[in-house]
Amino acid sequence: MNIKYSVFISNVASCNDRYCSAYGRKFSIEEMFARVKSIPSISGVDIVLTEEFKKNLAVVKKCLKETGLTLASVAVDTFANPIYQKGSFAAIDENVRQKAIEDAKFAIDFASELGCKIVTLWPGQDGYDYMFAADYIKERKLFSDAVKELCEYNKNIDITLEYKLKEPRTHSYISTVGTTLMMLNDINCDNAGIALDYGHAVLGYENPAESVAMCKMYGDRLRHIHINDNYGVWDDDMIVANVHTIAYLEFLYWLKKTDYKGYITFDQFPYREDGRDAVSESAEWMSYLIELIDNADSKEIEKVIASGSPIEASKLIRKILKGN
Amino acid sequence: MNIKYSVFISNVASCNDRYCSAYGRKFSIEEMFARVKSIPSISGVDIVLTEEFKKNLAVVKKCLKETGLTLASVAVDTFANPIYQKGSFAAIDENVRQKAIEDAKFAIDFASELGCKIVTLWPGQDGYDYMFAADYIKERKLFSDAVKELCEYNKNIDITLEYKLKEPRTHSYISTVGTTLMMLNDINCDNAGIALDYGHAVLGYENPAESVAMCKMYGDRLRHIHINDNYGVWDDDMIVANVHTIAYLEFLYWLKKTDYKGYITFDQFPYREDGRDAVSESAEWMSYLIELIDNADSKEIEKVIASGSPIEASKLIRKILKGN
Amino acid sequence: MNIKYSVFISNVASCNDRYCSAYGRKFSIEEMFARVKSIPSISGVDIVLTEEFKKNLAVVKKCLKETGLTLASVAVDTFANPIYQKGSFAAIDENVRQKAIEDAKFAIDFASELGCKIVTLWPGQDGYDYMFAADYIKERKLFSDAVKELCEYNKNIDITLEYKLKEPRTHSYISTVGTTLMMLNDINCDNAGIALDYGHAVLGYENPAESVAMCKMYGDRLRHIHINDNYGVWDDDMIVANVHTIAYLEFLYWLKKTDYKGYITFDQFPYREDGRDAVSESAEWMSYLIELIDNADSKEIEKVIASGSPIEASKLIRKILKGN
Amino acid sequence: MNIKYSVFISNVASCNDRYCSAYGRKFSIEEMFARVKSIPSISGVDIVLTEEFKKNLAVVKKCLKETGLTLASVAVDTFANPIYQKGSFAAIDENVRQKAIEDAKFAIDFASELGCKIVTLWPGQDGYDYMFAADYIKERKLFSDAVKELCEYNKNIDITLEYKLKEPRTHSYISTVGTTLMMLNDINCDNAGIALDYGHAVLGYENPAESVAMCKMYGDRLRHIHINDNYGVWDDDMIVANVHTIAYLEFLYWLKKTDYKGYITFDQFPYREDGRDAVSESAEWMSYLIELIDNADSKEIEKVIASGSPIEASKLIRKILKGN
Repeated sequence: MNIKYSVFISNVASCNDRYCSAYGRKFSIEEMFARVKSIPSISGVDIVLTEEFKKNLAVVKKCLKETGLTLASVAVDTFANPIYQKGSFAAIDENVRQKAIEDAKFAIDFASELGCKIVTLWPGQDGYDYMFAADYIKERKLFSDAVKELCEYNKNIDITLEYKLKEPRTHSYISTVGTTLMMLNDINCDNAGIALDYGHAVLGYENPAESVAMCKMYGDRLRHIHINDNYGVWDDDMIVANVHTIAYLEFLYWLKKTDYKGYITFDQFPYREDGRDAVSESAEWMSYLIELIDNADSKEIEKVIASGSPIEASKLIRKILKGN
Repeated sequence: MNIKYSVFISNVASCNDRYCSAYGRKFSIEEMFARVKSIPSISGVDIVLTEEFKKNLAVVKKCLKETGLTLASVAVDTFANPIYQKGSFAAIDENVRQKAIEDAKFAIDFASELGCKIVTLWPGQDGYDYMFAADYIKERKLFSDAVKELCEYNKNIDITLEYKLKEPRTHSYISTVGTTLMMLNDINCDNAGIALDYGHAVLGYENPAESVAMCKMYGDRLRHIHINDNYGVWDDDMIVANVHTIAYLEFLYWLKKTDYKGYITFDQFPYREDGRDAVSESAEWMSYLIELIDNADSKEIEKVIASGSPIEASKLIRKILKGN
Repeated sequence: MNIKYSVFISNVASCNDRYCSAYGRKFSIEEMFARVKSIPSISGVDIVLTEEFKKNLAVVKKCLKETGLTLASVAVDTFANPIYQKGSFAAIDENVRQKAIEDAKFAIDFASELGCKIVTLWPGQDGYDYMFAADYIKERKLFSDAVKELCEYNKNIDITLEYKLKEPRTHSYISTVGTTLMMLNDINCDNAGIALDYGHAVLGYENPAESVAMCKMYGDRLRHIHINDNYGVWDDDMIVANVHTIAYLEFLYWLKKTDYKGYITFDQFPYREDGRDAVSESAEWMSYLIELIDNADSKEIEKVIASGSPIEASKLIRKILKGN
Repeated sequence: MNIKYSVFISNVASCNDRYCSAYGRKFSIEEMFARVKSIPSISGVDIVLTEEFKKNLAVVKKCLKETGLTLASVAVDTFANPIYQKGSFAAIDENVRQKAIEDAKFAIDFASELGCKIVTLWPGQDGYDYMFAADYIKERKLFSDAVKELCEYNKNIDITLEYKLKEPRTHSYISTVGTTLMMLNDINCDNAGIALDYGHAVLGYENPAESVAMCKMYGDRLRHIHINDNYGVWDDDMIVANVHTIAYLEFLYWLKKTDYKGYITFDQFPYREDGRDAVSESAEWMSYLIELIDNADSKEIEKVIASGSPIEASKLIRKILKGN
């Protein structure tokens, strides 16, 4: 199983939460690139086009060239910029909504210029917090229309929606794999896809292996993957597989089975760890898990899956963990 | 707002859980009908076609005639019959799957004979419990094909899927409003719809008002409604509105706004209460909430919703509760 | 029921989340005091002694005097200061732990000087995120020893622990009402108490009314209350009673029944609302709910509670909502 | 690490849920004993003294003698008998409460006669479902008094409380490790202890390793353990370690570290599996995990725990899994 690894570049820096505005020092763009480059298995970076990165595109380009890292995806910033406080692509303020579409087109152009094929929309601010405070039909329609417009803007770039049940909103519109696939199938553009975040799926009580299967089945729409781990009820953005070890094995097996070809991107919030070390540790887990899956007998796995037997599945899992 | 109320007939009897096989005495079919009839606002009954009811169809018909109650929906029993322990419409055992389809066709014929327009599939056993123990694509396809076959069997009957994230399986295939609508839109039959259970929606962290909106938006597929309440993380099947009072108001408002015309069916598990009294109490809550909604000014509500303001929404809710 | 209301002063300003560093503009201390003062029912303020407030104690004193607002509680900042990233009172770094104790003593002295009787410890950083990464016995002992030392430092000030199941840590040591009362009873100081945050209780699947009862029963330790609301699985810090309306009524009834005499402090995170307006709206909800409780017949409520009947309880709740 | 394994005897038979009254055939007591005996690593059985078992005590004694299995614990049936529908030791009906105490004394006498040292109370019916429907102080006091009476009845038998956040009640009184330890410390009898159910702890968002530590720290009260697994939000009662693999390793390590000497009892609900095979599979997992822990270097583990470093912990876990 050949996997290309990438990382959201800010993951190797330091982060904050809603209480503490900075757990660690600030890192320059050059430093972040150098830190990514120092992790052997990673060949790509993902960039959120925040105002700061937009001001420093020349630096980004230089760093990409010098490090030889590939730009795996570009994410539109519709969550850190306070202009999107009350919504971006579904904003009822038409000026804000147009600004979001412009920001996304800028990201598409930037990706296109650098040979990157994936633009991600994580519409964290599109949703609602209170009851009687949103027109669900109207706002979902606005969102859907924006995605369609972006898909048609450049058909060579995949527009990938990253769904998440909640946070920062208490309720997101792009919430689950089913809701998102339904919208994408309705939009009906070949370059509309899903960016599946492992932790987001788990947070919504999805089994990510099944989410991969659903993306395959309904339009072959899985185009990008973010990985991290959590305790099942919140997006803790931890080092991978420290909680969901067996579920990760099944997830990787289904990526192999459905022939996923894209990047796998580390996406963590290392509040109390060194960012680079936390990503490196996730990379070590991935190597270990991939080796376990590759050492396992696919025919035997398929036989167990076809049997539908939990007893056989449980025995199989132990066998996989023992490395055969 | 004119609402037709109905109730799953066994709700007025007694129930059990996985520890205690019978919290109360058994009630005859005639007794259950009499108990339903004693609740003034209820004009319909819903029946799960268990083996026991199948053996007593003549009694059921007689009781319907004598009480004047309408048959609001017929549900196929694919969860109480142990033959469906490992799946029904998605069973990998082809004999079991065919038996499920036959049971559903029997229910369709029975509904048709009695002038009932709704047949509900609650595929509680279709899903999985352990990892590496199911072929998600194959089994979802089997399920979808079965639903299509049933929709085509009698186009005058609405086949309604009742989704639920989990239980009795730890993971259900027909899990959320999005997943279900996506499948129904893929099946693409006019008589394929959704039976929305309020508690099931809440259990999956859906806001039921938004689920109603999504059903409207994506194919106008809301055909039946089950109501009860719970604490948000399990299908507690309680008396309505004792936990989610304001969410119930918003839910009812969206039913009004989207012009829902079907039945609202009480669906509870009164483990420690008298079944009839628990249903009657839910009926009292519904009258109260409907009156609050009908007394409110729809134009004002629409204005607040359009404003997207939580402050205005919070004020509005208090105003609605105060009865204007 | 006479209630004294207070508010965490920063609540009336603007806030941030882990993605967006500032949703609104910065407010000066004077502005914040003026905004609190503009809400009629509020007579107190609560202050977290962050570095910024510590630098401006003279301003705080002046504002208290000029506005006539009472200092309801002082909270030690062991969560915004990055020095406590890996723990405060339970930190394994002894220097950090001593610094936390010093910060707490400073808060105690400041409270004492201003006639405030409540110092709150919200030990958000004391806990752990990963498995095999903490010595639960040793760290809990360190924490308990620190609380004891603080209780003995000034016996006229109540040291109140604010428990919370998680966040910012994935697992907090001071997690639930039971865990906290157990530790306080073990410490065995009269001035050790609980600061019950409504939303924290709900987030841990507690029923806050029952938590109030437990505090009464095991040492009469309820000394301070923070209020807000959430959807049951995360500390959403919303305007009160918009989700848990009936649970709020029961909570207020048990405060009355157990003769709670302290402040009730608004504690919200109004990410997308004006902070002052969101607090004012919560104050309006409180007036409404208190009026409903005061209009209800306590003897009737006690009779229903003693009956243990959900049917009677459900009828009673509707009666209370209707205002008798 | 020497572990004695036992199993709730009915686990090797078949079970039901609230929808399906019997997923498999009934097994006789003799058959159940034979099935337990067929699993090599199990040396004990646990018995819930239901009406059926009470009628067949002679058979039970004969089977214990013939199989050589030890009686690891006796559980009082206060959840399957419908007389306890509205409570047992906390029942407000004094006759019911006295009957519960008598049933418990019968269990104590039976345990005593057969040389068993552990009697477990799992008070599943003691709690409440609705708001305004229980007097939390009065009922908790009744419960506590009953436990004290039972502890004093025979000081040679440990009375162990099995806590669980919810189910069958939506809210249990004996809910979390903290709440339970607090009550036990208040009761203050040496033979009052905890029966920790792994799945119950997880369901309440506890980390079972930490719960073990808390039992050690506050009175050394851990006396019995039930094991199974679940997805974190409900008591799914699955085969062990299929979900929480790493958490199980930490849990076992803390049992070793705190020198736990009692039985570890399998406690599962194999709805769709053969009961004996599901228990046998859990036994295989336990052997595998114990071997991993025993092969690991305790000094290294202690060093990592003392470091408080998630990075080191994550590396350590991989090393343990690799069998080093």
